[in-house]
Amino acid sequence: MCGIVGIYNHPEASKLAYLGLYALQHRGQESAGIVSSTGDRLHAFNTMGHVAESITTEDMARLPGSSAIGHVRYSTTGSSSIQNCQPIMINYSRGHLAVAHNGNIVNAKGIRDEFEAHGAIFQSTSDTEIILHMLAASKKSSLVDRLIQVLPELKGAYSLVFLTETRMIAVRDPYGFRPLVIGKKGDAYVVASETCALDLIEAEYVRAVEPGEIVLFEQGGMKSMRPFQQPKKRAHCIFEYVYFSRPDSIVFDRNVYEIRKGFGRELAKEYPVTADMVVPVPDSGVPAAIGYSEESGIPFQMALVRNHYVGRTFIEPEQTIRHFGVKVKLNAVKELMKDKAVILIDDSIVRGTTSRKIIKMVRDAGAREVHMRISSPPTTWSCFYGIDTPTRKELIAANQPVAEICKYIGADTLGYLSPAALYWFDKQSPREWFCDACFTGDYMVGADDIRKTINEGSRLPRAAQK
Amino acid sequence: MCGIVGIYNHPEASKLAYLGLYALQHRGQESAGIVSSTGDRLHAFNTMGHVAESITTEDMARLPGSSAIGHVRYSTTGSSSIQNCQPIMINYSRGHLAVAHNGNIVNAKGIRDEFEAHGAIFQSTSDTEIILHMLAASKKSSLVDRLIQVLPELKGAYSLVFLTETRMIAVRDPYGFRPLVIGKKGDAYVVASETCALDLIEAEYVRAVEPGEIVLFEQGGMKSMRPFQQPKKRAHCIFEYVYFSRPDSIVFDRNVYEIRKGFGRELAKEYPVTADMVVPVPDSGVPAAIGYSEESGIPFQMALVRNHYVGRTFIEPEQTIRHFGVKVKLNAVKELMKDKAVILIDDSIVRGTTSRKIIKMVRDAGAREVHMRISSPPTTWSCFYGIDTPTRKELIAANQPVAEICKYIGADTLGYLSPAALYWFDKQSPREWFCDACFTGDYMVGADDIRKTINEGSRLPRAAQK
Amino acid sequence: MCGIVGIYNHPEASKLAYLGLYALQHRGQESAGIVSSTGDRLHAFNTMGHVAESITTEDMARLPGSSAIGHVRYSTTGSSSIQNCQPIMINYSRGHLAVAHNGNIVNAKGIRDEFEAHGAIFQSTSDTEIILHMLAASKKSSLVDRLIQVLPELKGAYSLVFLTETRMIAVRDPYGFRPLVIGKKGDAYVVASETCALDLIEAEYVRAVEPGEIVLFEQGGMKSMRPFQQPKKRAHCIFEYVYFSRPDSIVFDRNVYEIRKGFGRELAKEYPVTADMVVPVPDSGVPAAIGYSEESGIPFQMALVRNHYVGRTFIEPEQTIRHFGVKVKLNAVKELMKDKAVILIDDSIVRGTTSRKIIKMVRDAGAREVHMRISSPPTTWSCFYGIDTPTRKELIAANQPVAEICKYIGADTLGYLSPAALYWFDKQSPREWFCDACFTGDYMVGADDIRKTINEGSRLPRAAQK
Amino acid sequence: MCGIVGIYNHPEASKLAYLGLYALQHRGQESAGIVSSTGDRLHAFNTMGHVAESITTEDMARLPGSSAIGHVRYSTTGSSSIQNCQPIMINYSRGHLAVAHNGNIVNAKGIRDEFEAHGAIFQSTSDTEIILHMLAASKKSSLVDRLIQVLPELKGAYSLVFLTETRMIAVRDPYGFRPLVIGKKGDAYVVASETCALDLIEAEYVRAVEPGEIVLFEQGGMKSMRPFQQPKKRAHCIFEYVYFSRPDSIVFDRNVYEIRKGFGRELAKEYPVTADMVVPVPDSGVPAAIGYSEESGIPFQMALVRNHYVGRTFIEPEQTIRHFGVKVKLNAVKELMKDKAVILIDDSIVRGTTSRKIIKMVRDAGAREVHMRISSPPTTWSCFYGIDTPTRKELIAANQPVAEICKYIGADTLGYLSPAALYWFDKQSPREWFCDACFTGDYMVGADDIRKTINEGSRLPRAAQK
Repeated sequence: MCGIVGIYNHPEASKLAYLGLYALQHRGQESAGIVSSTGDRLHAFNTMGHVAESITTEDMARLPGSSAIGHVRYSTTGSSSIQNCQPIMINYSRGHLAVAHNGNIVNAKGIRDEFEAHGAIFQSTSDTEIILHMLAASKKSSLVDRLIQVLPELKGAYSLVFLTETRMIAVRDPYGFRPLVIGKKGDAYVVASETCALDLIEAEYVRAVEPGEIVLFEQGGMKSMRPFQQPKKRAHCIFEYVYFSRPDSIVFDRNVYEIRKGFGRELAKEYPVTADMVVPVPDSGVPAAIGYSEESGIPFQMALVRNHYVGRTFIEPEQTIRHFGVKVKLNAVKELMKDKAVILIDDSIVRGTTSRKIIKMVRDAGAREVHMRISSPPTTWSCFYGIDTPTRKELIAANQPVAEICKYIGADTLGYLSPAALYWFDKQSPREWFCDACFTGDYMVGADDIRKTINEGSRLPRAAQK
Repeated sequence: MCGIVGIYNHPEASKLAYLGLYALQHRGQESAGIVSSTGDRLHAFNTMGHVAESITTEDMARLPGSSAIGHVRYSTTGSSSIQNCQPIMINYSRGHLAVAHNGNIVNAKGIRDEFEAHGAIFQSTSDTEIILHMLAASKKSSLVDRLIQVLPELKGAYSLVFLTETRMIAVRDPYGFRPLVIGKKGDAYVVASETCALDLIEAEYVRAVEPGEIVLFEQGGMKSMRPFQQPKKRAHCIFEYVYFSRPDSIVFDRNVYEIRKGFGRELAKEYPVTADMVVPVPDSGVPAAIGYSEESGIPFQMALVRNHYVGRTFIEPEQTIRHFGVKVKLNAVKELMKDKAVILIDDSIVRGTTSRKIIKMVRDAGAREVHMRISSPPTTWSCFYGIDTPTRKELIAANQPVAEICKYIGADTLGYLSPAALYWFDKQSPREWFCDACFTGDYMVGADDIRKTINEGSRLPRAAQK
Repeated sequence: MCGIVGIYNHPEASKLAYLGLYALQHRGQESAGIVSSTGDRLHAFNTMGHVAESITTEDMARLPGSSAIGHVRYSTTGSSSIQNCQPIMINYSRGHLAVAHNGNIVNAKGIRDEFEAHGAIFQSTSDTEIILHMLAASKKSSLVDRLIQVLPELKGAYSLVFLTETRMIAVRDPYGFRPLVIGKKGDAYVVASETCALDLIEAEYVRAVEPGEIVLFEQGGMKSMRPFQQPKKRAHCIFEYVYFSRPDSIVFDRNVYEIRKGFGRELAKEYPVTADMVVPVPDSGVPAAIGYSEESGIPFQMALVRNHYVGRTFIEPEQTIRHFGVKVKLNAVKELMKDKAVILIDDSIVRGTTSRKIIKMVRDAGAREVHMRISSPPTTWSCFYGIDTPTRKELIAANQPVAEICKYIGADTLGYLSPAALYWFDKQSPREWFCDACFTGDYMVGADDIRKTINEGSRLPRAAQK
Repeated sequence: MCGIVGIYNHPEASKLAYLGLYALQHRGQESAGIVSSTGDRLHAFNTMGHVAESITTEDMARLPGSSAIGHVRYSTTGSSSIQNCQPIMINYSRGHLAVAHNGNIVNAKGIRDEFEAHGAIFQSTSDTEIILHMLAASKKSSLVDRLIQVLPELKGAYSLVFLTETRMIAVRDPYGFRPLVIGKKGDAYVVASETCALDLIEAEYVRAVEPGEIVLFEQGGMKSMRPFQQPKKRAHCIFEYVYFSRPDSIVFDRNVYEIRKGFGRELAKEYPVTADMVVPVPDSGVPAAIGYSEESGIPFQMALVRNHYVGRTFIEPEQTIRHFGVKVKLNAVKELMKDKAVILIDDSIVRGTTSRKIIKMVRDAGAREVHMRISSPPTTWSCFYGIDTPTRKELIAANQPVAEICKYIGADTLGYLSPAALYWFDKQSPREWFCDACFTGDYMVGADDIRKTINEGSRLPRAAQK
């Protein structure tokens, strides 16, 4: 996953972009980058590492200008390299161009092969570089015309922010997989993955970039284009609600906290159990746990305490300490749980190993019963639209029935939210609006390419995922 | 404030000490240090900065041996220097000696003056160095006998861990201001400021070091001494319950989370108000808010969201962004608060400036009413026993009545927990057991020295405070 | 300027590449990079900064495999960015390809424009990226065939080392502007800019890669190809002898130290003067000063002492200290120079500002007379073949007669080596073998492109120079 | 070995101190520190590492005031710790006091034992801390009176600079082992180990601090005191001339370069040999080689080339590369040496291992004969006055006759300068003025303490050596 931000027409554009990335840090900790424009040329800075640690005041000083775009990338194993950092900045026949991308292009490989066959070179393993090749290869004269020509050829998820010497352009794919919002701060325009970025820089939320919309920011102001034939359906990523977005953000026109609380309420209706307390796995499980508690009347307790700060230089302890990966992040309030029946609320189970460790910790703390409740359906399929899910082979729910998972993680009972209850907030026509392929395998876009990748037993190259 | 830890008789002593400090990071982020012993000599490492960022694997490799003590120090302005880092390690007539100290010696200045008059030199502004001078100057032969001779001369708060080539010694002042607990991990002994450090390294909680107790760890095992005439009273720091300790710790034989929840319940009884939700200022306000919610029946909402991670290199935004210091840490869930009456729960108000910013943020989020509830009495006196409170002049509650504070911070109503309700967990004889001088000005130990310092209009030199 | 190295068929290929770069550090301090191959794929690491400071053991651990190429780039102002670091690594239709380049392509702009016109994108301002585009665009099937097709289109200077998954290829342009040598270390092959890199890793010097030669290193061994129609002339850079190469290297089949000593001897013949001592400007002036001393019989003295070590974090002193830039590097032995007539030997004068400062220092040290002798002719033209000379406007000798330069730098007399004497080591046909365009303006290759650039009043973009 | 510097009455005192340390970097690379005074209090900064790399602009900003002292310490194995960094800063009855020390106190252990017996504590293993204890323990009222009382008790080598809130005091032991000079820069006073530090900051050389002199810098200016009964002899360290000081410095009233050239001339007289060239081991052997060349008429050649820059993160090569430690620093100009008879000039031989490697390198380069000439007598005794010589057991010349050494290092002939010739510059009464104990075992000061240490088979603790 990634987070993107764009600032147009502000004297401290790159600083605001930095702050925006700061607010979006939950969307990516592996690398960070900003490109700014001084009107005549672009200025770039990319770095491995967390935005809060790796960008210095000196770095910022090298990013002058009144517009800027930024990008943070999620930590993935195996593809950590500066070459894959974004924004990508290029020169082509029309001058400079930089782009920051959140999403994943499903048919990238085919296009890439074709380009390579015609002599193109690629300097990253990123699908984003492909978009730049396509734009550069277009015969249309303006960048906007090129976008209109090129974008329909892309299958997949893409929220994009482009920066040229004089313009900023925001684009969202026709299905609207990934969020992208527009804000205003005085005379300046802001785009960002989530509204929490607008809040930090005190920009006013205007509206979302609509699926299939191209929004052009230039001297005269903001201009909207909808050059595509718009599909009837949308494919908003339901997992943004389940886990990814921040609870204080507005995503797909709804507040994430309230959606999550609803998940918890529905979960309480679907999987009620008698117990002494409802305990969230912090931080992502908190709103659902509050919802579960409200609906069930069982008291909410913050009985798993998060360590304030987990630094990068953590020194591994010897092996006699069990479940260490969890311990360094969480600790149980033993006195609260002792001899009690506990309902644990988490957002999802991927491999099951973390849940197993947490439940062990809760039992060691003396809990009499542990009832695991997951505020989403079983994760049974990989995501190919930008979230770094493992292959099906590694997804416990793709390989075992719920009863077995329950046994594996060591819970007394285990309940997953039903796919239907997931759409409590819109019971009319949810499947028209959301992508829930990770729960259903129903890949709305590029299904053929995806099926082929799955059959090859592989997931997308991780570096290709943003 | 500071956190201390000690490990005795474990092959990875310094690594466990590091992990213990990691768990105690909330007690000090400014510097960290570890001293280990290989039986023949001590090995020291001190560093400025956060334990999670500043200690490397190479540093650890230089700390061999089967016993180790560690120290983290709280961030204070103006006295940041490597000289004041702990543990302090010295050579004296009996060999090597290192010490880590949590607390503050009230009569340090007098003793120091006397020592200097006799020709002693001091290399830090720390009061801890004074203890070492006293021990070295003693004519007794063993270190324990020296401690027995020297400690009664100290007035103030001291939880101490000493390390020599072959022994570890834990000491707590007769009034027991600061916590200190004993744990066991196989054949190894552990001491730590809070039990959360034992949890991380999977040590079993044995008991607290008792006020006035000297606990000696040596080859034969653990030996307890109580050589002092024990005062009838105790002076456990009530502020450890209010704010400082971690909720998952056992401190002064009670679980902090449960104590805090009780503060919230009492607060709901003393200052009820009709409202739509109870919202904690995270993270310290959470348990009290849960208690308030339970007692009042008003729903608990996590409507202020903390930023995951606030790094040290944060680049300051321009001044057009208001209340920035708070914004970078917190954001309000607007949709939740809009047109609602909100009860905000925080643990204390020091200068009032942060509360003012938070309430502004809550009002900007659309809250109709903001009722501030503080889970402790007004902070009206400086602490001289180890907490870095500002001078009275800076403490808003020492200078203004509650109604004025309410106005200043911009709340509709403001309620502080009563001093009596603070002791809900022990209604019998609280004042026999706790120090609440920060609320009452009732300084149980060293009152004369303290009064003099206050009259001089100064607080203790910050570096002298741990 | 840059330095390049390649290792083929050695279990510690990247480590040897690192050591080779270490020996070539005088050819580039701004950035360093290594790409290694494990047979199936390439592994890349680039970093800004000096090779000796910026590459860590961890970085090396990420560069496995039995072949590797490396690159160091010279410090140039204004184009310091990670994007311009080499080796450049790409994917194209034939797999992975990496290249390290020393030199400069004179007709790069035209080719680049054409590529951009056809839709290509560029991620650096480097001319090297153009070569990769050309290779990828070729329709030939093998990389060697593509090289044979593409290289003739390039005008300018290029010593190149390519690395694929299974091969290493070394190339030198038909005129042989930049050096490139082949060594052997057991079963492993080594290529490097200078023989000093072979010495450090104990590889045996085999021979130079010949101008216009393609040398292929593959499983079967080393294979040489000469597919080009070879021009009758060569264009070995005479400035490698004057300044750039290390004195202990064999460059263009001759030892640099001996060449430089000859420059000094000739200078003594052309510009004799009665004086007390011959003093080199260290370190580059040393061999010429020894030659001058031998020829003239005037004693050689090391009367300007270099500071051992000039770090990057040097903190600038206040302005009351004059000539600081020189002072931090050099100091005069006053007692030696006092009341003496001094002959100063330096390799060249660019802007004249440094010479002026050094002469001021020598006069402040008490020298009675200062006779400046330069072991090369006046630098009157910019280099377009890989050395970062300033524009003609900045070259003092391009704008002022020698008498004026003498006055400006504050010398009593000033003598430059004559162009003819430059070729003392080959009086037959020097102009057939060497490029001395920086002294004569006689650009042997790409003169049209160069003339155009000069007329536009600009030099090549600095980033384009290696 | 160490370097010290002091600045009095200059608005940029700490910056000048930093520059002074920069010029003295050859005297210590392990740690650096500066203490400045703002008149009311002292400000300290110490860091491990090279002065040119480890002090940042931010560090300097924390060192305000118009006076400052600084210290660099030589790299010694085993005692690298921040506790041993200087200047040491203390508080005592008279306020703040900081000191920087070059030298070594021979009777430190006895004094230290006595202090510890009386209850004193030590925070370093440095002998300098003892001086501070003695000063603090004195009953005299002024610091100067205390110095007068305390210094006579010290046996050994000490050049000291003290800083108080308002004064700077420079002291040199009565025998004057280590150099210390006074300079003036406008209204400011400077003291430094060598005059090269004055040159860098453009201070004028005034004179040396005399042996046994106390020089007080205060508001009214500079004041000299000579309160001691002055011994008839001096003990200037001859090794400062042989190796330690920079050639451009004036040390003990003479220029080091000229002294060293004389060593070379004498060596040529004492050990003439027919050969093709005289080659220095750079950089320390250069002036002696020039002298040898002048005297013998054999041409001087810089046939061993130093690597420009040897960084700290140097990554070790595999073991197949022989003599690596030397190779990374030096390389031979093979073409020059091939089939030639070479005279190598070095300043001294300690263990013989480096000479052996260098001669191997010279032979590998093709030299027909290698004649080693050492510009000092055999090093047969350890230094106890501040130079970090190994124990006698490790000194090759203390254990083997010259013929054996010659064989071990692989030279054809080996000649050491005679003790008498060492004093070529003062044939009258050298033994009255210089300490040459490292060559003769004639320890002029503290011989009893030294003999005891030697008999115990140990050298002084390395940390105790400056």
